[in-house]
Amino acid sequence: MKLATLKKGRDGELILVSRDLSRAVSAADIAPTLQQAIENWGAVSPTLEVRYAELNEGKAEGAFDLDQSALHSPLPRTYHWADGSAYLNHVQLVRQARNAEMPETFWHDPLMYQGGGDKFLAPTEDIEAISEEHGIDFEGEIAVVTDDVPMAVSAEQAAQHIKLIMLVNDVSLRGLIPGELAKGFGFFQAKPASAFSPIAVTPDELGDAWQDGKVHLPLTVHLNGEKFGAPEAGPDMIFNFPQLVAHAARTRYLGAGAVVGSGTVSNPDPDGGPGKPVADGGVGYSCLAEVRMVEKILHGDSKTPFMRFGDRVRIEMFDRDGKSIFGAIDQQVVKYQAK
Amino acid sequence: MKLATLKKGRDGELILVSRDLSRAVSAADIAPTLQQAIENWGAVSPTLEVRYAELNEGKAEGAFDLDQSALHSPLPRTYHWADGSAYLNHVQLVRQARNAEMPETFWHDPLMYQGGGDKFLAPTEDIEAISEEHGIDFEGEIAVVTDDVPMAVSAEQAAQHIKLIMLVNDVSLRGLIPGELAKGFGFFQAKPASAFSPIAVTPDELGDAWQDGKVHLPLTVHLNGEKFGAPEAGPDMIFNFPQLVAHAARTRYLGAGAVVGSGTVSNPDPDGGPGKPVADGGVGYSCLAEVRMVEKILHGDSKTPFMRFGDRVRIEMFDRDGKSIFGAIDQQVVKYQAK
Repeated sequence: MKLATLKKGRDGELILVSRDLSRAVSAADIAPTLQQAIENWGAVSPTLEVRYAELNEGKAEGAFDLDQSALHSPLPRTYHWADGSAYLNHVQLVRQARNAEMPETFWHDPLMYQGGGDKFLAPTEDIEAISEEHGIDFEGEIAVVTDDVPMAVSAEQAAQHIKLIMLVNDVSLRGLIPGELAKGFGFFQAKPASAFSPIAVTPDELGDAWQDGKVHLPLTVHLNGEKFGAPEAGPDMIFNFPQLVAHAARTRYLGAGAVVGSGTVSNPDPDGGPGKPVADGGVGYSCLAEVRMVEKILHGDSKTPFMRFGDRVRIEMFDRDGKSIFGAIDQQVVKYQAK
Repeated sequence: MKLATLKKGRDGELILVSRDLSRAVSAADIAPTLQQAIENWGAVSPTLEVRYAELNEGKAEGAFDLDQSALHSPLPRTYHWADGSAYLNHVQLVRQARNAEMPETFWHDPLMYQGGGDKFLAPTEDIEAISEEHGIDFEGEIAVVTDDVPMAVSAEQAAQHIKLIMLVNDVSLRGLIPGELAKGFGFFQAKPASAFSPIAVTPDELGDAWQDGKVHLPLTVHLNGEKFGAPEAGPDMIFNFPQLVAHAARTRYLGAGAVVGSGTVSNPDPDGGPGKPVADGGVGYSCLAEVRMVEKILHGDSKTPFMRFGDRVRIEMFDRDGKSIFGAIDQQVVKYQAK
């Protein structure tokens, strides 16, 4: 099933989107919002499935052509946004950039931070930033949405609570990170509002690409229209989604609609090296911090700047037939203007 | 105005509570939930004020005797829970306990972490913990609720967005903190669900005690029926609430219903010393970590243990006439049982 949220008020209106993303139909009579659907998933999902089948068969009453720009993030806000960092190649590179070693324990104990879920950006909404000096970066990631998760679940149990999958742009302000991490309380100002892909999909939509709690497809990122990376999201994810959800729930219950992110998708070389930029024949990356570090390693200097006002990032994922699964996150950075 | 939330579904039912906490009346016809009230505060608060006046005059139709145990936290869940640490005596003591110095910058740049807001505990709900080995602690704090806050507001502007005040028990698992802070991403498992006072009040209810964006009254904490502390919340709060809200909003918008906490209330001695436990004639503390550190300083050894299963903490605040303002957080620690 593919679900999305039409922009409307704070929580939008739930719609179903056809598998090929061309058509849509309201589902507001079944559940007014995605938050309400996920709170009652067992009860509402069979009815949603029926309408989704009708939509794909061209038989859904009231169906309309989908305009992705009318969509908000599937959950325009959530009570719980926790982002892991499960691709350790990313962790290794961003730490190297600030001269910090990666402890060995990181291979066994997931990194995760609590993010702000009160005002997500829409998938095509501008990223407002105060200053280019903040080191504006994107982070291409995958995230899952859960229903109610009991405290202290095992990863095996956690897997049953993963209901939806989507993409994320976890906007990061690199210039603010070292100062915040030095304070010891984790990210705060360095992680402004994230944006999610216009479409959220149930795991079965991914077919064989959803295996072992991971998405086995490349995540495609373009910067100002140029291909920036297409790293594989499956093989190098050291902790899968059920493990990340179990980590988040170790000492507390998670409320329905909790979003748990994978961290920035990143592939090392087969020999353990940090991979290569697209310009050097590699698969590239899904954030600027990594390519800057690798440029430094390969060429002695980071030549790619962080994002400037007017720069645009596009994040999407295609199936093996080249069809977009989640629609595209496509955002421009603009200078914040007091309103 | 005094507001509260009757337990009912995920978000409860909004009620008004009389100034003396004896009577209550539903406000669900004005706004079904506190979240919905705060999202439309300008429109609904005048109507709420009228009913609140009637309630205090004994003229509100449908009024009933208040049973505090029927109340959830005023916001049973929120999209944004950010907790500052504005009492630097607390910061200094807990860092001393883990042999970490407090940087000088902490006097100018607030500490703040993002907490999980998806499932707050009710004010009298048990604190479920997996193991006493986790170092179960309470933290008595004050928090404010905002309406929609624009990005990059000044502290002066932020003050206008503070609509409600309440108390918090920011439950902490001390044993998990050093490991999490060492990872650099901040607290996560070490900060399970918080609980809030049964009543949230508008700033005007505090009269002279709300000044300079701080609450100038002692916060009273009892542990297993014994007085544990009554530190003054006003004088030693280094960053006031408008400053904390502005810090939270520096790089992003805050959605209505955002909760921003003060951090653990703590008083140093007039000479800058770390204060004294109640047993030593001091005002005491509002968390165990501090008293344990001070015992070590004064007596060479921490004799107060962290909370054990069956222990009970009570957190409340009285006005200058000895009347409870917010009702009491009163929680017992119990061993988590898989359900």
